Amino acid sequence: MSVLKSLVDSVRSGAIEVIDLTAPLSSETPILQLPEPFGNTIPFRLEEISRYDDRGPAWYWNDIHTGEHTGTHFDAPVHWVTARDGQDVSQVPVRSLIAPAVVLDFAAEASKDADFLLQIDHVKEWERANGPLPDGGWLLYRTGWDTRSGDQAAFLNADASGPHTPGISVECAQWLASETPIAGIGVETVGTDAGAAHSFDPAFPCHSFLLGAGKYGLTQLRNLDRLPVTGAVVVAPPLPIVGGSGSPVRVLALVER
Amino acid sequence: MSVLKSLVDSVRSGAIEVIDLTAPLSSETPILQLPEPFGNTIPFRLEEISRYDDRGPAWYWNDIHTGEHTGTHFDAPVHWVTARDGQDVSQVPVRSLIAPAVVLDFAAEASKDADFLLQIDHVKEWERANGPLPDGGWLLYRTGWDTRSGDQAAFLNADASGPHTPGISVECAQWLASETPIAGIGVETVGTDAGAAHSFDPAFPCHSFLLGAGKYGLTQLRNLDRLPVTGAVVVAPPLPIVGGSGSPVRVLALVER
Ligand SMILES: Nc1ccccc1C(=O)C(=O)O
Ligand SMILES: Nc1ccccc1C(=O)C(=O)O
Repeated sequence: MSVLKSLVDSVRSGAIEVIDLTAPLSSETPILQLPEPFGNTIPFRLEEISRYDDRGPAWYWNDIHTGEHTGTHFDAPVHWVTARDGQDVSQVPVRSLIAPAVVLDFAAEASKDADFLLQIDHVKEWERANGPLPDGGWLLYRTGWDTRSGDQAAFLNADASGPHTPGISVECAQWLASETPIAGIGVETVGTDAGAAHSFDPAFPCHSFLLGAGKYGLTQLRNLDRLPVTGAVVVAPPLPIVGGSGSPVRVLALVER
Repeated sequence: MSVLKSLVDSVRSGAIEVIDLTAPLSSETPILQLPEPFGNTIPFRLEEISRYDDRGPAWYWNDIHTGEHTGTHFDAPVHWVTARDGQDVSQVPVRSLIAPAVVLDFAAEASKDADFLLQIDHVKEWERANGPLPDGGWLLYRTGWDTRSGDQAAFLNADASGPHTPGISVECAQWLASETPIAGIGVETVGTDAGAAHSFDPAFPCHSFLLGAGKYGLTQLRNLDRLPVTGAVVVAPPLPIVGGSGSPVRVLALVER
């Protein structure tokens, strides 16, 4: 039987489960807060055009106001100065939008230390147990942070010294960017970098190194606990915004039962 | 070999081609124009937050202002009064976002008559030649209109009597909604209904009958000429906007070579 026929039959029968990795989009969706004097994204907002009323008797619809980097979103290389001539979100090859994914679970560590940072050795140890990181695929980094995403304060977890959310060390970000074949990383937090990454050298190393290497980011994922360690396929197709640095994205995972 | 492993290998080798059915999103994206006193959607617009400057030295990003029903987009049932208690765009079951698709090509007819309407007999004749419409899948209706989508005037094709773009007859829309197992219809035009459908009885019958039956719409598709008549799989995952009547969507087709 053809691969696509098998795919359709398996999705229908439930032999392949489709798991939604996307957080719902609403005015409650948490957004990044950068300190002064930096610009920040607007909150997500719907603006009603009509709702079965004089403005449209048979139809209901809205305008949308949002950031490119709001909710579950895709970071394109051009988002960062290290890839200023790199791909915008409309230029990412469509083939790379359907790709294998592996899950590295550090939820236990992050629950003990909100500033937990993934290190090269963690990834190497994972590889010894589970095989190489997927060529052209996603490294999905589970921290348990998705359980906080309904609550902006708990999600950003900021105090006087700034936000405290788990991330990836400078060395590990550089190594993932230059020494591994992954297409990008996916995280549960508000952005791919740790809360404290504004003070790292370089600042925001995941953005700096991974986007600089032409790789991608996925953020604010949920349901990573429902994925196998290896073997899932992730569909993460951003809107083809011309010149866009990123895009809210619906991320689906396919998992064979 | 597992279905997902075959899928990944085939996408990588090119044995399965990923075809982008989405129009690029920009301020040039054509939008529907309803007459007074009806509300209309705003044009798509990016608003720069920073671009490697004082507002963000290492990063470039934008806010987005758009309509839910702008560019290539997904119509959820609640868009129409006939499904006012129906699914919003965040409630569409994820399993239905990966589905088989067939292509009905009436580009020749539409090039001769901009008001061409698909009839029940056209679909029945197509079924005699190609088999039944797909259960839980998409009917993709090709009219050649995608070649006009770079030019708002040619795309909407309006004169003093209103817009003239191809669509589906009242009877056929009702029949597709109630007598066929499709999940929805996909079109190349600005909306699922014909340009003249404001004057039909009921007005906008595709919206009225198909959404009223809990089915979906996809609009402003392109590259349908690159799909086989049967056998493609379409991935059309809208943003999970809570209460959303629709969403801009990245639509990808998988085609076995
Ligand atoms: N960390 C950042 C710093 C500046 C701009 C954006 C970010 C993000 O996290 C993002 O891409 O959502
Ligand atoms: N035809 C319409 C009439 C009123 C509102 C929207 C539409 C659309 O086509 C749409 O869904 O894009």
